[in-house]
Amino acid sequence: MEIAIMGYGVVGSGVANVISLNNKKVTDKSLQESMNVKYILDLRDFPGDENEDKIIKDFNTILNDEEVKIVVETMGGQKPAFEFVSSCLKAGKSVVTSNKELVAAKGDVLLKLAKENNVNFMFEASVGGGIPVIRPIDQCLAANEIDEVAGILNGTTNFILTMMIFNSMSFEDALKLAQDNGYAEKDPTADIEGHDACRKICILASLCFGKHVFPESVYTEGITKITLEDVEYARSWGGVIKLLGRAKRVGDKISAMVSPALVANTSILSGVNDVFNTVLVRGNAVGDVAFYGRGAGKMATASAVVADVIDCARHIETRKPFGWGDAVDNYVVNHKDVETAYYVRATGDKIFALKNAEEVFGNISILTRENAPEDEFAFVTPVAKEAELDEKLDKISNINVVSKIRVVNY
Amino acid sequence: MEIAIMGYGVVGSGVANVISLNNKKVTDKSLQESMNVKYILDLRDFPGDENEDKIIKDFNTILNDEEVKIVVETMGGQKPAFEFVSSCLKAGKSVVTSNKELVAAKGDVLLKLAKENNVNFMFEASVGGGIPVIRPIDQCLAANEIDEVAGILNGTTNFILTMMIFNSMSFEDALKLAQDNGYAEKDPTADIEGHDACRKICILASLCFGKHVFPESVYTEGITKITLEDVEYARSWGGVIKLLGRAKRVGDKISAMVSPALVANTSILSGVNDVFNTVLVRGNAVGDVAFYGRGAGKMATASAVVADVIDCARHIETRKPFGWGDAVDNYVVNHKDVETAYYVRATGDKIFALKNAEEVFGNISILTRENAPEDEFAFVTPVAKEAELDEKLDKISNINVVSKIRVVNY
Repeated sequence: MEIAIMGYGVVGSGVANVISLNNKKVTDKSLQESMNVKYILDLRDFPGDENEDKIIKDFNTILNDEEVKIVVETMGGQKPAFEFVSSCLKAGKSVVTSNKELVAAKGDVLLKLAKENNVNFMFEASVGGGIPVIRPIDQCLAANEIDEVAGILNGTTNFILTMMIFNSMSFEDALKLAQDNGYAEKDPTADIEGHDACRKICILASLCFGKHVFPESVYTEGITKITLEDVEYARSWGGVIKLLGRAKRVGDKISAMVSPALVANTSILSGVNDVFNTVLVRGNAVGDVAFYGRGAGKMATASAVVADVIDCARHIETRKPFGWGDAVDNYVVNHKDVETAYYVRATGDKIFALKNAEEVFGNISILTRENAPEDEFAFVTPVAKEAELDEKLDKISNINVVSKIRVVNY
Repeated sequence: MEIAIMGYGVVGSGVANVISLNNKKVTDKSLQESMNVKYILDLRDFPGDENEDKIIKDFNTILNDEEVKIVVETMGGQKPAFEFVSSCLKAGKSVVTSNKELVAAKGDVLLKLAKENNVNFMFEASVGGGIPVIRPIDQCLAANEIDEVAGILNGTTNFILTMMIFNSMSFEDALKLAQDNGYAEKDPTADIEGHDACRKICILASLCFGKHVFPESVYTEGITKITLEDVEYARSWGGVIKLLGRAKRVGDKISAMVSPALVANTSILSGVNDVFNTVLVRGNAVGDVAFYGRGAGKMATASAVVADVIDCARHIETRKPFGWGDAVDNYVVNHKDVETAYYVRATGDKIFALKNAEEVFGNISILTRENAPEDEFAFVTPVAKEAELDEKLDKISNINVVSKIRVVNY
């Protein structure tokens, strides 16, 4: 069977690599006589590269070659990926992508196109890199109604938070180290502001709850405001701060958001460190299950792409039913209407303010840290809707709220 | 589509429950018009049970009913499960089982029977209860050569060890608590001596490395000798004691064993507590991935069984290629030839013995604990084959080795 790869960057070259390195296993598992990369589409030249002779510049070569049954899209971004992928599906070719931006923005359209043309559109690598996530949720948890999905979905921010927690590095220093290690890009915005995690929770929520969720509808908060003081208070509370993407069924709607969160040390999510990712799924029969591994990296991500290629090859005649439905309006409830507890750090007249906070909230857990300034204090509120908590916080007189982080119970 | 369940115990009744509770989703996912439990085979009566009218006593009713396409085996044990499952496969019915004893002892024979009769034989629930493990390894990691597989595979022993680690309970008290909570049976031998974990690592090793592995060929050691002293030393070393099943590719053979092991706090396995299980897989492309969840329990296990039922229903005409090859002689290397480090606790003339140990081993890490008796000491050896380590231990004069636990690097 002939395969084409579009985009010969980190993941694309990893895909070529895995298909070549494990060719016997890939071929056997595909139930094919051979699995061969015929073309690699990239505008750049790769002189001396082992796949140099496969590099092409014209997308139409792939589109018009009937031998090519499976196309791998590892270009990233929406343009021209969306156009290319659409054309391939319409031409009766199955498509595998690692492109989370494309799936989050256009998954509904592309899944429909795949169905209409009786081909497969798969994207295991778009969430959690090499970690099996999409297929286990779709197939292994098929007997469950899924109630919640949550996870550490971005390796860069998890690395930064890990350095802050274990090595007491500042956010800025940890970010610099992540960049030096190649874990963060020169412009780290998409990672540290939570946009990358947002795309992934959109894909997971679409899969778990059955309707397409667009990134624009998901409240997203990054980790740039987290300080070592917050890390210390989280420790005294008995937990750690993690950047979580999470979504939950709420009647016939869902809640969905990306934000830093206090996670208790008893949670499996608290022990996920460095660049590792974990996706936790809560099903009505199975309870909590979690999937852990490297959320990025050339070979790990390529491993997931090639697993999809194998699945497409096995289902080349009989399309595999997979996907979700169209988006519906007002499907994601406003985060202000979501119940949570807050961790709050503030400055002011400590004794007076804490007494006031207790009166307003009814009950708070006061946290302490060593060497805290006289006028600093921190506490955890009871659970209520965010809007209600914010209203109550406003009622506490003469305090300056420095940090406000959600507390979760995974 | 009509389904029969053989064995209406905890798991069997859970299966009936999940198919009824989530019937719409189960039916949709199965691509069938209906999914219905027609018979439940059990020798007992269940007066007043919601499925009372489905209970039958004669296996032939199932065997001879052509409407029944999928049979669920949740009886446990080998007799008469093996005979019943074989007959169903020969009669052209797909079989789903949660019976790890059956799969570990007879998986090779039953997989062959399924292939010959063009039907499916599936057993996701036989390892890790509801955790998706078998299918992700088979499908999602299909692009990898798997180098190692290891896991916390038994919830009962993990609960006992968790109580010892966090609550300083003795082994005996923790076992009693496990029995009181319904986590351990009256006769806990299969759990605490490692036999249950052994069956599961056999299934995982067979799947990961392609040849059937029999429990008899796997060195198995339980947790009955673990004491709070060992738990304390493990803590001072920076880790915890867990009962692990593990297997590893060694040339064209494998190593496989079940034993307590020192796991570092940096490992994801160290944070798996209570009755939770985790399976860790090390692939040549993906690196480490892990699957976490409840390893037992009625609804969790039933969730995995029903996922297999759904998969069988989807592949009722086109058998899903899945399984492994026959066992081969001398495939599992003797544990004495496996490389490891040992944690050793001993009594004797402390200063003299530790000096002697350093001379013999070249290099050891000495561990300490509070309130240790004068004549007690503990250390971790370098890595070498077990036979060599044992030989060197014998050379240390005048010491009495109390505990010897393997140290792992997952």
